[in-house]
Parts: sequence; structure tokens; C-alpha cells
Amino acid sequence: MTLMTPAQFEDSLKEMHPRVFMNGDKVEDVLHNKNTRTVVEANKASYAWALDPRYKHIMSCYSPLIDDVVNRYTHVSASIDDLVKKAEAGTLTAEMLGTCIYRCVGYDAFHSLASTCWEMDRNLGTEYHPRFMEYLKMVQSKDLSVAGALTEPRGMRSQKTLDWPNPYLSLKLVDKNKDGIVVRGAKISISGAFASHELVVLPQAAHFEGEEDYAIAFATPTDAEGITYVCQYSPYSAERDMADDLEELGNPVFGQRETSMVVFDNVSVPWERVFHCGEYAYSMKLVTRFAKTHRMTCGGTCKVGFMNQIIGASKLIQEYKGLEKATHINDQLMEMVILRETGRACGLAAANKGAEEPPGSGVFLPDELMGNVSKLNISNAFWRVMALAGDIGGGLIVTMPSMKELKNREVKDYVEEFYSFGSDEPTENIMKVHKLLQHWTAGQHGVATWHGAGPVMAQKIMLQRVIDYEHEKNLVKSILNLKEK
Amino acid sequence: MTLMTPAQFEDSLKEMHPRVFMNGDKVEDVLHNKNTRTVVEANKASYAWALDPRYKHIMSCYSPLIDDVVNRYTHVSASIDDLVKKAEAGTLTAEMLGTCIYRCVGYDAFHSLASTCWEMDRNLGTEYHPRFMEYLKMVQSKDLSVAGALTEPRGMRSQKTLDWPNPYLSLKLVDKNKDGIVVRGAKISISGAFASHELVVLPQAAHFEGEEDYAIAFATPTDAEGITYVCQYSPYSAERDMADDLEELGNPVFGQRETSMVVFDNVSVPWERVFHCGEYAYSMKLVTRFAKTHRMTCGGTCKVGFMNQIIGASKLIQEYKGLEKATHINDQLMEMVILRETGRACGLAAANKGAEEPPGSGVFLPDELMGNVSKLNISNAFWRVMALAGDIGGGLIVTMPSMKELKNREVKDYVEEFYSFGSDEPTENIMKVHKLLQHWTAGQHGVATWHGAGPVMAQKIMLQRVIDYEHEKNLVKSILNLKEK
Amino acid sequence: MTLMTPAQFEDSLKEMHPRVFMNGDKVEDVLHNKNTRTVVEANKASYAWALDPRYKHIMSCYSPLIDDVVNRYTHVSASIDDLVKKAEAGTLTAEMLGTCIYRCVGYDAFHSLASTCWEMDRNLGTEYHPRFMEYLKMVQSKDLSVAGALTEPRGMRSQKTLDWPNPYLSLKLVDKNKDGIVVRGAKISISGAFASHELVVLPQAAHFEGEEDYAIAFATPTDAEGITYVCQYSPYSAERDMADDLEELGNPVFGQRETSMVVFDNVSVPWERVFHCGEYAYSMKLVTRFAKTHRMTCGGTCKVGFMNQIIGASKLIQEYKGLEKATHINDQLMEMVILRETGRACGLAAANKGAEEPPGSGVFLPDELMGNVSKLNISNAFWRVMALAGDIGGGLIVTMPSMKELKNREVKDYVEEFYSFGSDEPTENIMKVHKLLQHWTAGQHGVATWHGAGPVMAQKIMLQRVIDYEHEKNLVKSILNLKEK
Amino acid sequence: MTLMTPAQFEDSLKEMHPRVFMNGDKVEDVLHNKNTRTVVEANKASYAWALDPRYKHIMSCYSPLIDDVVNRYTHVSASIDDLVKKAEAGTLTAEMLGTCIYRCVGYDAFHSLASTCWEMDRNLGTEYHPRFMEYLKMVQSKDLSVAGALTEPRGMRSQKTLDWPNPYLSLKLVDKNKDGIVVRGAKISISGAFASHELVVLPQAAHFEGEEDYAIAFATPTDAEGITYVCQYSPYSAERDMADDLEELGNPVFGQRETSMVVFDNVSVPWERVFHCGEYAYSMKLVTRFAKTHRMTCGGTCKVGFMNQIIGASKLIQEYKGLEKATHINDQLMEMVILRETGRACGLAAANKGAEEPPGSGVFLPDELMGNVSKLNISNAFWRVMALAGDIGGGLIVTMPSMKELKNREVKDYVEEFYSFGSDEPTENIMKVHKLLQHWTAGQHGVATWHGAGPVMAQKIMLQRVIDYEHEKNLVKSILNLKEK
Repeated sequence: MTLMTPAQFEDSLKEMHPRVFMNGDKVEDVLHNKNTRTVVEANKASYAWALDPRYKHIMSCYSPLIDDVVNRYTHVSASIDDLVKKAEAGTLTAEMLGTCIYRCVGYDAFHSLASTCWEMDRNLGTEYHPRFMEYLKMVQSKDLSVAGALTEPRGMRSQKTLDWPNPYLSLKLVDKNKDGIVVRGAKISISGAFASHELVVLPQAAHFEGEEDYAIAFATPTDAEGITYVCQYSPYSAERDMADDLEELGNPVFGQRETSMVVFDNVSVPWERVFHCGEYAYSMKLVTRFAKTHRMTCGGTCKVGFMNQIIGASKLIQEYKGLEKATHINDQLMEMVILRETGRACGLAAANKGAEEPPGSGVFLPDELMGNVSKLNISNAFWRVMALAGDIGGGLIVTMPSMKELKNREVKDYVEEFYSFGSDEPTENIMKVHKLLQHWTAGQHGVATWHGAGPVMAQKIMLQRVIDYEHEKNLVKSILNLKEK
Repeated sequence: MTLMTPAQFEDSLKEMHPRVFMNGDKVEDVLHNKNTRTVVEANKASYAWALDPRYKHIMSCYSPLIDDVVNRYTHVSASIDDLVKKAEAGTLTAEMLGTCIYRCVGYDAFHSLASTCWEMDRNLGTEYHPRFMEYLKMVQSKDLSVAGALTEPRGMRSQKTLDWPNPYLSLKLVDKNKDGIVVRGAKISISGAFASHELVVLPQAAHFEGEEDYAIAFATPTDAEGITYVCQYSPYSAERDMADDLEELGNPVFGQRETSMVVFDNVSVPWERVFHCGEYAYSMKLVTRFAKTHRMTCGGTCKVGFMNQIIGASKLIQEYKGLEKATHINDQLMEMVILRETGRACGLAAANKGAEEPPGSGVFLPDELMGNVSKLNISNAFWRVMALAGDIGGGLIVTMPSMKELKNREVKDYVEEFYSFGSDEPTENIMKVHKLLQHWTAGQHGVATWHGAGPVMAQKIMLQRVIDYEHEKNLVKSILNLKEK
Repeated sequence: MTLMTPAQFEDSLKEMHPRVFMNGDKVEDVLHNKNTRTVVEANKASYAWALDPRYKHIMSCYSPLIDDVVNRYTHVSASIDDLVKKAEAGTLTAEMLGTCIYRCVGYDAFHSLASTCWEMDRNLGTEYHPRFMEYLKMVQSKDLSVAGALTEPRGMRSQKTLDWPNPYLSLKLVDKNKDGIVVRGAKISISGAFASHELVVLPQAAHFEGEEDYAIAFATPTDAEGITYVCQYSPYSAERDMADDLEELGNPVFGQRETSMVVFDNVSVPWERVFHCGEYAYSMKLVTRFAKTHRMTCGGTCKVGFMNQIIGASKLIQEYKGLEKATHINDQLMEMVILRETGRACGLAAANKGAEEPPGSGVFLPDELMGNVSKLNISNAFWRVMALAGDIGGGLIVTMPSMKELKNREVKDYVEEFYSFGSDEPTENIMKVHKLLQHWTAGQHGVATWHGAGPVMAQKIMLQRVIDYEHEKNLVKSILNLKEK
Repeated sequence: MTLMTPAQFEDSLKEMHPRVFMNGDKVEDVLHNKNTRTVVEANKASYAWALDPRYKHIMSCYSPLIDDVVNRYTHVSASIDDLVKKAEAGTLTAEMLGTCIYRCVGYDAFHSLASTCWEMDRNLGTEYHPRFMEYLKMVQSKDLSVAGALTEPRGMRSQKTLDWPNPYLSLKLVDKNKDGIVVRGAKISISGAFASHELVVLPQAAHFEGEEDYAIAFATPTDAEGITYVCQYSPYSAERDMADDLEELGNPVFGQRETSMVVFDNVSVPWERVFHCGEYAYSMKLVTRFAKTHRMTCGGTCKVGFMNQIIGASKLIQEYKGLEKATHINDQLMEMVILRETGRACGLAAANKGAEEPPGSGVFLPDELMGNVSKLNISNAFWRVMALAGDIGGGLIVTMPSMKELKNREVKDYVEEFYSFGSDEPTENIMKVHKLLQHWTAGQHGVATWHGAGPVMAQKIMLQRVIDYEHEKNLVKSILNLKEK
């Protein structure tokens, strides 16, 4: 059995030595820093679930590649059923963590690479596909956590890439030699890479002839020479740093979504880990195949799980206040459920309408139209759900005192008395549920929902490309018996 | 082969003699009255498609009941695949007709009856199920068109049914004898019954003890003694009556949706056609099973087809005006597509999450939650699509002159010149497409979208019943490690 | 006293002989044709109100120009108070008529002409302003009804005006001589001109050098030689033509909004009625000043009045059904009220923030930003109100039979019985109120709301021009103490 | 001149000794604690503006009560013009502070007290009005900052007030003697009281006979014996506590909105500061008059100012990225402006339609309908503006590293390079603007927008009370010529 236990996963991370900075200081150990620890916990949970009888039918699967059971997050979907399970895994991890499962970007990048390497090889005679499959075998055999990276700083959007004064605002090839390639640049807003074993990198800027040096995809250990992580630091990071006890926090163990800028300062990548190098005509394919896979994930699966936490917390507050019969609150809860189910339906449709792409590759990707539709819908829906939860939860969501006051002799009794709603629920529970809703309605997830899997405009551009109106026009011509011109 | 040809269908209607009134006059022949004719045409098309190689995989299917191929609209779904095909049939008929396929209410009522008769027999020892199956066999063997009827006038909503001064505002049993039952009352807003062979009737008002006389379901020939149809008469009816040529109209052949009030003035129904009589505890089951089936139809399938006509017409007008590059119009078209695909996704999810109900009955019904969600979503979406089409189409949609002006020597040239948009498209085509959008954006379909398959509040009530929050609450309790009280 | 009585107005129309076509035939007398008659009635009502003690403080005012009381619809606003009264007049006429007051386009065009003629004279030394004021004096002294015309057929939007194969798709000067000018082309979707005395014409297509021949504004009697009206013909027109009694109709006396295409086939206009001729740099000013005035009218005033009818009818149906305590309906009614009041607030803000434009001209115009905001808001709001009314009103709105059935001996009793809701309200009343909601929710007003005063995109373009972000950027720079670059 | 300088204000606070707790510790000095300091700064700014030639026409006014110029926030509106100025003051303070002006609740409570004390005296013969006016004179003469308090913990909403096991979940009279009254209970979510001189308290729970002890309104110094402040502590509080430099923060000087629970543990209030005591029939009047005044403030004025900061920051990011010509961003900015102007229009309408209430009292209050409409609209609009800013601003809003990294030698260059967008704007500026948008889109203001001035349901309840449908019903009856029953 190749699957690692959670403890084995944690041990394996101890051997990694990524160069990480946060809040102006170096993070000496990502296992112990309070904020980076949340990423370790989230990934660790994914190892537990793959072994857990309740979840392993979703979180693990058989891989013909190594003829063994693997964690689903290392498996490239090979059927509609795999895509449906992928959707279910996304919802499960999200609703259990209340934040990102940091392995999903890498997982979705695998889909894009498997498909596009196969196509490059077929069309160009390159040998990326076997190389990528070898890499994937290694990942599966060792049961590694793999993060993914796409987004780049980029220069002025009004300029073309080649006109930027600083060419490194997208990740760029700076050298190519017999051992491999050397790259410089950065990836930004990258989820949880510092607590993964590996990082899979896709190109963002390459489109046209002349942009070959930006047409690069590869895998690298997360602690390769030349890689630096500059971590996000948000109010929620500060709060975690200041907490005496995790239970003071809205999402005690798993936290808010942690990202970093990943700087590549002349990082060397050996050829066996290079999956794309110069074939600019395929760079956008790598991006769009990743994007539609990831949009199904973000749009139709993980936000469904997040909404479950929000709905559950809102429902509990309704009950704590004795408002079970308040029609307007029941209506708001129902609206949340409708939005959640609509998201779920679109995710499932993206999976059910998925297809092998390219035919013959063995890789199944979600439907482009539905993948993009699911992400567009959920972006608006998630803000609405946040807003509704903010209305149900009440002002205390954002005006509550620290849970430390429950241990402060001078005010403890006041807090116990006046935040009880007169119910027999322990005030501590009531405050914790409010704190969870603070996490959801006054934190980073609103903005993150827009931008995970690309901003709204990216989905719209893709939809404009794939929508075809011929069927609809012909219906009209036929029903109206229109004359030929 | 049991399937009728369209011509055979039309001939079969000639033998029916329903008592029909419209616009203050008697309709002597529903085949010839211009407005009732549209219903004949719509139903007739469904006979053609069941034989058409392009559509028969959707519009017909094998029925073990009679061991032959039948029209899908006479088949009770027996699998998830049947439900998915049912959804596809709904979209196909809607996009081809641009109005109701008048057989869908009966089709959906079959699902409810097959399921609930089976359950009544099992629980109460009644013998409705074999009786209904015999009836269905006859329908399939003769390939009949069957309409359905649920909605009733009802009395003041502030009063209970038994307190209404006039007990006949819901359909009521007035006699029961050895041959069968006699009923009085009316069904309102009933789609297309007068041009069907049969009418299947479900109860609406029965809920409680004492309301047994309202707990009736049965089938009747549409021209049974005592039945009178008082047809709707809308501005669109008047326009059709005044047209010299069908091509002057927005939906030339199939028209707007035609309904009538069906009055039952002491109508006798023999026992072999009575499927529910007095078992009030099952009346709401008949309604809700019909409702969720019909909500999938209205919410996730037929409006998807309607939207295709609207999208196609909007696109054509964009092209006629030379506005292909107008970003705001492309955005609006995309918004329509997103709404359409969201509707489709919810319909598919309702089918894919469907189940045998009750287990053992052999009847597959759509998922309750998704069925209701699809209808709620589409009601809002359809108004939005209408509005968007109204914006794209422009004022001419509602200010255009009669197409008769194209034959009026005195103004013909002006009309040709000034409604051409300077394009080389024949002005007649341009006007027809505007006329189609008038049909969609300034007609009855907006309101109909709310009320087909029941008003919004009916879906909300059903959702409130089926939504359960335990899973979500437990997620929160677990992630926050809440204390037991 | 210069004000005409309604009877005098009707008599005055008898002397006009416009060339009018509808539904393929010539309209010999606009006073008697059932559809054109609705326009006569609407304008006639405006004469009655100006004399009515209940309304004359809104519908009439003192004009220093002729030192007498005039109908407000002939008065150019000279103060903020005039603009506020103008808004109130728009709401009053709309809620009393349930359709357009056909004098408002001319009224708003007066504002644009008074302002822009003054400015042209000041800047270019032309003499349009005194000429226009003489014309206005005549209009006020004779108390004439004046329609306005802006919208033109136009050619392909992808081509520039001068590249159109047919130059007459916008109204064009074809000759200029000592007596005046001669024009050819057409105006489309023009409200009610055929039942007015005068028509004021503004330019639509002129923007640039070379387009001087499109830069024309003038006034003409509605029955001038060369003018032809090709009237709209909608399902509502057909219904009115087929009605035995006006009471069968949704808006019995005033009907749906009637428009026509106005063809100018070499129409001569004497110089004293020409207010703009060739000064293309001022053409867009004429348009935008008209537009912002008219957008306040359409956006913030007349739809407020329309909504009052819709709200009233919805409320009555709620009461007829005994649903006064239904929370969801009360919520929907409240939502309508909120949308109405928001529209009213924006209209009032447009008036209250109005200003003399250009300074010194004596002409007060509404605020550009608020005028456009009010129209944009109301376009969406009106569709929402239609939809809500469609939900409250129920399916009968679109499935009700003709009111003729109340006189049909064979079905009269059924109709009386089954459309009563068991209430003691006369069924005739109930049906009429449904018919009124049909007029609003299944007719032309949805689309018309988008396009009256210009489509949404026109408002957006104007907003993009007038919005300035410097104030907001400076706030940010200051609060963040940003460094100078 | 009675107006204090900002320095005098700060000095005056040094004499106050409120008992304040935050994050488990005692706050020894609200002037120095980093989080309580933000409230001091916000209030201090209001003293500066009242003296600033640029703002004093808005922020100060003449008070006949003391025959001197006073800060507007101590003045009860006595005319429509005062209400309009009140609206302008609300927008000014909000856009300058980017958070609450903590004096507005007290200011709005003054309006309610002046009106209702006058009415109680007239109707009941009490002597509250002169007492309150004496108090107000003192406030104006000393130019005090006065906070207000309404919201209470309350018990189970399913129970009546008198049935709560703990009677102190609403503020309750516990003793009444010759010197005054003694009260026990708490007010929650109270903005900024600990850095004000005075606190004005309104009743929340009293409605019915038997609830006299909850019918209390009074004023108290903020450091009265028995008062304890338990401050909110949010992630933003922690971030501020951990910052080395205020410039690291999103709103450096004025912070997020600071509130506290104010506990009254047997606080004595002398009679001359008691304005309501037992007259339960007037308690809801105190609440609703406060509410409509405060809803105009929250709905139509302060969120308008907040939106200006959000719009400015979004615009700057657009420019930093070189996206000035991106249509979709310009559309989003325009949408924000439309929402802002709609909010402003409703606020202005509430002021312009305000009235003296009760007549004769000299107190002008905003229009009830418009006050509530403005709050309802803005609650939804503000979430939409947050969402739009989150889309425009991009993922960096929530993934950016600490600004401390700009001083960290090891990563400083990377941060400078990769967060520059290739623009020539200092990276520090770019990061600060993102930080400001983090403050707005990932902080407490979304939820606060729902609940400031009461939750949505409170506005809806009030609207249901004030909306009257008679005018609308009569319009319908008249246009349809309905029969009398």
C-alpha cells in the first residue's frame, strides 16, 4: 500500500527545507509557525480521509499507472465517473476543512498536463507525455502532496508581454542546457505550496511567436535552490499569531486560505521534470484545460462545501436565538440552499458532460461551457450567501469581543450573561459559531471566490469562445420559414 | 407498430366532439378554429417526431407494458436514463414549437398516478394500480394524446375548503354508484385539453379528514357528457383571428400557449377510470409527485428550449444591425446562455438524482430538492432572458407595423426601405424575427413561467419541507469542537 | 385664457388631415379609428387636467412668454421648482392614463431646443433662439399638442453614416432654398404624433464634419405634405379592433402605447420653423439635453405612475382571493413599493440637482448623472415589478377568457361561478383587474421601458462621459498618505 | 465661541476614566491603546472639520438654543435644510474617515428624544422636554461628543420579554428614588462610546403594559460608576496590535469600526438626565423616530461616503495595472457609481420629504418611507460594491504579504519587483491601496451594513406599517370603472 498515514505525511515534511518569509520574518519551520501550520493540517487531513472507511471511496482510487490504490488528488480522471468523484471530493474536503484543500491546484494541473503533453507529443513529436507520466508515477508511489502555480505578477496590461521593461514579471526561461532549464520570475497568490512536497508550474503569459521563453511547464521540489516564499499576512494571520488558544479562532485548526508569492530566482529544473518548453502554441491549451478543470472545482464543488458550513452556522444561530419560526430567516436559509444546489448542479453537469480530451489521450476533462458557467454562477452566489449569513448572524459576528474575555475574571460573568441570548446553550458555543461566521463573512473568502480559478472576465472570455449560436439561429429560421437572402 | 402518423392523429381528433367556447362564441371545430388549431398542430408535431429518424431516440421508447415502441409522452419513467431522456424531450419539443407541448401535463400526471396508486394499493389494499396500468396500456396501444388537469378555481384562501359557501370551487364528488362516480366543479388554466383525446384529472384541495369528496383522480375522454371548455382569449388570440396569413404572426403555426377552463357539470366517470376516490391522505402525494415531475419539466427542460428561440432571434437581430462586435450585446447574449445552461444543469441534476419512488413501485421520479430548485431558478431566469431580449431587440419589437403593410401599395416601399437596417436581409425576414421576439417578450410566457407547475410559493413550501440542516449543523459542531449542552 | 377645453381640443383635431396607415389600410379619421382614438383620449385628458381644480397646480403654470397660464406641457422649465413640478406631472399623467402622455417627448424636446438654440446663437451668431421662442409662443397661445421625434431607422451599425448605401436611413436635408428646407427620411417608434397638432424633430445621426445634412431640427404641422404615418399594429391593436365594448380591454380608454413610423418624403419646412441646420457640432448637444430631460421623465416619473396601477391591481387581486395575510405577497407588494420609491427618489434628485444650462439661457435641465441613473434603475425595476405582478396575479392574467363570455348565455354562469374566488366581488370586476394586469405584464410596456428615452447602452455611454473619479482617488491618496511618484 | 479645538477635545478625554476591557486585558488609557485610539481620532476629526473653512458650512451650524455656532452633531434638525445638511455631513465624515463617525448615533437619538419628549409632555403632562433641552444646551455649550445606545442582548426571541428567565437581558430599571433611577443590563454592539463624553440611552424592549421598567431613556457620562465596556476584538484589532507602523494598515488612522458591549451594573442616573421612565406607550416611538433618522444616515449618507473610498481605490488599481480601457472594469466602476448615486438620491429624498414631527415640536425628521427604503437599498448595494471591488482589485487584496516585507532585506527587492505591475507607481503605494480594499472587502463593513440602524427585517416591518395602498387601488377602480359591490 502506497498511501501515507497522516503521521508519515507530517514526518515527510520535516525533511523539506523551504525558504519562507512571513510578516517581515523568516519562518524557520512551517510545521510550527501558527499560520503555515494550518496548511500542514489541511493537507494532512487529506491523508487521513484516504484511509478512513467513511471517505476512502471518494478520497482514494485505483490507479492503473502504478497498479495500486492512490490518493484521488494524485489521479488523472479517466472517465465520467472519475470526474463525478472528483466533484464529490471537492465538496467533501471543503466542508470538512472550511478552507482550501491545498492539493487541488496540483491535481487539476495534472489533468491539463496529461492531456496537453499527449497532444504535443502527437502533433510535434515531443516526448513530454511519457516524461510526465513517469513523474506522476513517482508522485503516486510516494503519495506526495503537489501544489500548483499559474498566476503571475505580469506587467502593465496595456503593454504586450515583450514590451514590458522588466521581462521577469512573468516566469521566464533564462537558460537551457544539457541538464535542464533555469527560470526566473514569480508566481503570486499561490495556495499552500510551502507545505507541499512538490510544485507543478504552468505558463501564463505565452501566446505568440517570440514568447517561447514564457512557454514553460515543469515540476520542482518545493525547497529547490532559488525558490523563496513570501507569505500573505492578513488580519486573520495576526489574529492567529496573537491567539493564546486555537479555540479563540473562527476556523481553529485549518484557518483562512494561506498563500504566498513564490519567487524563482534562477531555479534549475532537470529535463525529466520539464513538460513544456517553447511550444507557445500549446501554452494557452495548458492554461484553458487547467482552467476548466479548476473552474469546475472552484465553481461547482468546493464552494458547495463552504456553503454547508455557512448554512450550518446560520441555522445554529437561528436556533440559539429561538427564531426557528421566523419566516424571513427560513426564507434566507432556503435561498442559501437554492444557491448551493444550483452550484452543485452546475458542477455535476460539468462532470457529466465531460469528455476525453483530446480523444485518445485517456484524459477526461469537464465540459468547457458548464465549467465556466459553474464558476461564474458561484462567484455571485457566494457573495450572496455571505451577505445572507451576515444578515442572519447579526451584528455580533463583527462586534463580538475576544473569547479570551471568557477567562477574564473581571468581565467573564458579563460575557456569559449577555451573549447567551437567554438560551441554555453554553455561551462559549454561541461565540464560537459567531466566530466561524466572522471567518466566512468578514474575511478573505469573498474576494478569493472571484479569483480562484481566474477572475470573472477570464470565464467570460472563454464562454465567448465556446458559445455557438448556429443551432439557435436555425431554430428561428425554421419556425419562421425565413427566406434565403 | 402502435404509433400513429400525424395524419392519423388529425383524423382521430375528427371523431371527438368537445363542447368548446371562445370569445363569446361556440367553436364548432377545433381543427379549424384558428386558435384551437395551434394546439392541434403542436400535438401533431409530437406524433411526427416519434417517427422521425432525427428525433425518435428521444421522442419514442420501448414499453414493456405493451411490448412495443410507444411515444415517450405515454411512458412512465422506469430508470434514471428515462428521466434524462424525459428532460431532453422537454427541451426538444419546446425549442421546436416555441410553445407548450400540450401532452406534458398528462405525461407527468402518469408518473404521479403510477407511483401513488401502487402505494395506495400496498398500504390500503385498494386496486387502483392495476386499473391505472390497464388504462395506460390502452393509451399506449392507441397512441393517444392525454392532457392533464390540476389547478382549480378555489374559494377565498382565508377560508378552509369546507367553509366555502360554494363547495364546487374545487372539483367535488357529487355521486358514487355501481357504475362509477359523478363530479362537479372546474379546472382552470388547463393547457390544450380540447385537442387531446383524454384528460387525466388530479385532486387539488383535499388534505384532511372531511375532505374525502375532493380526493378524486380519474381519466375521461375530453368530450364526455357534461364537460365544457371556456377558452382563454388574449390579444394574441385576436391577432390570430384577424390575420390574413399565418406568416404575419410571431409564432405562425404553433401560437401562444392555449388554455381553457374545463367545467365538469355532473360528469360521470366509470370505475375503471377512477384512480383515487376518498383516500385524502394520499391526495397531496398525488399532487407533490406530479409537481416535482412537472417542475423538472417546466424548470429544467422546456424553458431551456424556449430560451433557444429567444437567443437565436436576438442573435439574428444583432447580425441584421451589424452589431456583431458590440461588447454589451455579446455580454447580454452570454448572460442568456449562462441562464439557459444553469436551467439545463438543474434539470439534469433533478433527473440524475432521481430515484424509484416508492421503492418497489418501478416508477422513477426526479429529485424533489433539485426539481423545485430548477423551477425557482428558471422563473427568475426567464424574466431576465425576456428583458435582455427586449433590450437587444429594440423598440421595434413592440412598435412594428403589421406585416400586411408589406402588401399595401401605398406604404410598402417605405416599410421595405426603413425597416431594412440598411442590410441585405429581406425586410420580411427582419420583421418576422422581431415578431417572434414580440411573441416572447410582450406576450403570455412571462406570467406563464411563474405559474406553470405551480407558483413560486408552492416550490418554496415544498423546499422548506425537504431541506434538512442536520448535516450542516454537525459540520459546524465538529469543526468548532462545540461542547455538549 | 388660452387653455383649450377637451372639447375644443377634439374639434381642433378635426381640422388636421394626417396621412395614416394601420394594419394594411388607410385610417380615414384618427378620431374614430379604435386604436388611434386612444391617443386622442390621452392627449385630451391633459387638456382636462389643466383646467381641473384638483390637478391644475401641476398641469398648468404661468408663462412669462405670453403672460398667461399655459399647459405645463408647453412650458420650458425655468427653475428647480419647475423641474420638480415636471416630475410630478409625469407621474400624475402616467398613473391616470396607464399609458404614455403623448405630449412628453415634445415637451422635453422644447427644453433641449431652448437651451441649445440659445447656445448656438451665442457661440455662432445664428438666430435660432428668437425663432424658436416665437414658435413656442404660438404653441402656448394656441395651446397646441406637440409630439417629438428623434429615433431613426439608421443603417448598419458597423458602418459610418456617410458609408450607408441608402443615405435616407437617417433624416436628411435634400434641399435648402429661400423659403426653407426640404427633408427626406423617417423617424421610427414615434409616440402618438398623428393625434397631435405639431411635431418637433431633433437630429440623431449627425456627429462629425461632413454630416451637416443630418444636422437638422425643426417643427412641422403633423399633416404637412409628404408626411406619412405607418402605425404599429400589435396583438393589443387587434384585440381592440375585435372588441364589442371597450370594457373588454385591459386599459379601456387609453390603451397600450401607440406609435408609428413617420415618413418624411420630401417635406418642406419654412425657415421660421427651422431651429438647427448644419451646425453638426451642436447636434449631439440637442440629443443629450433632450435625453437627460427625457430620461428623468421616463426613469423617475412616468414609470412611477405606471407602477401605481400595477401595485393597485396586485393589491386588489390579493384582497379578492382573501390573501391579505399572506406574508410572501405582502413582501412582494413591498418590494414593488421599494422599487417605485427608489425610482421616485432618483427622479426627484435629478430635478433637485438640476441647473440652468447653459448659464444665462434661462433653461433648467435635470442633472445628467441622476437623469441617467434614474432611467437605468427603472428599466430593471420595471421588469421586476412586471414579474412580481405576474406572480401575485396568477395564471389567470394570461389564461382568462374573453369578457364577452359574461354575455354568452351558454357559459355565463360558469364564468360567474368559477372566476369569483368565492368572494362577493362582482366577477366582472375581478376579470377587469386581471385584464389590467395582462395589459401591464403581457404587453408592450416591458420592452418599451428599455427603449423609451434610449436603450440602456445610451445611458451607460452618457454615464461614462460624465463620471469623474478624481474626488474619489484623492480621498484614497489622502487617507493612505500615498507618496508622490 | 463654544467649539473645541481637536487638541481641546483630546485633553477633555484625559479627564474621563471609563472602565474598558479588550482582548482579555484592561485598557488603561483609551487615548493610547492602538485600537481605542482610532475612535479618538475619528471623533477628533469632527472637531477639526467644524472649524475648517472647507467644511464648517456642513459640520457646524447656528443653534438658537445657545445662540451660538455649534457642531452639527449636537444640533437637532429644525428644517428641511437642516436634514439635507445632516445628509451631507454624513457623507463627508464617512468618506474622510473610511469608518464611522462615532457621534452619529447620539446625534440621531437627540432627534428622537426632542420629538418624543415634546409629545410625552403634551399628551401626558410630563416634563421631559425642558429637561432634555437643558441637557442639550449643556452638550452644545461644552461641545461634547455624545454616543448613543439602543441594541440589547435580549433573551430568546420565541419568548415574551416578561417571560425571560433573566430579566436583565434588556436594560431594566432596578430602583427609582428621589435622586434618580438605577438601571441594570447591557447594550451591545455600541459604536465608540468609550471615547465619547456622554452616552444617550434609548429603550429597546418596552412595548406593552407590564414592561414599564424597560421603558427608560437617559443620558450618562461614559465613565459613570457601574459602567463597563467589553470591546470587540476582531482580526483587524489583532493586526493593529501587531503593526509596527500604522502605515501597514488598510485604514491607518481611523481603523475599522470599533464597538463594545456596555454593561450597566446598577448605574445611577439623576432625574435631570432621565427623559423617559415608564411611559411604555412611547418607547416604540422613541425607537422608530431614532430608527428612521438613523436609517437615512446609514442608508443614504454614510455608505455613500464609504463607496467613494472603494470606488477611488478600485479606480487607482485599474490605473496601476494599465487597464483604463478595459470595458468590463469601466462597467463595474459605473455600476458602483450607479449604486452610490441611488443611495444618495434616496437619502436626499428622505431629507427633502422630511417633516416636523409632531407638528409644533420644532423637530424635523426624515420621511419614514424613504428612510427605510434608503437603508434597504444600501444594504444590498454595499455588498455588491464590495463584491465588485473584490473583482476589480484582484486576488492580491487578500493574498498580499505584510508591508513589513518592504523593510525585510531578504525579500524587499522581490516584493518591490513583483508587486509593481511594471508601473512606475511606488510599490508601497500599490500595496497600500490593496490594503485599503482589504479593509473594505474582507472586513467587518459588510455585516455592519446590514445591522447598523437595525437589520433588514426591522426596515421591512416598518415599511409594512407605513405603506398604504388606497391611492393605488382607487386608480385602478377608476380607470376600469369597477362596479360597486
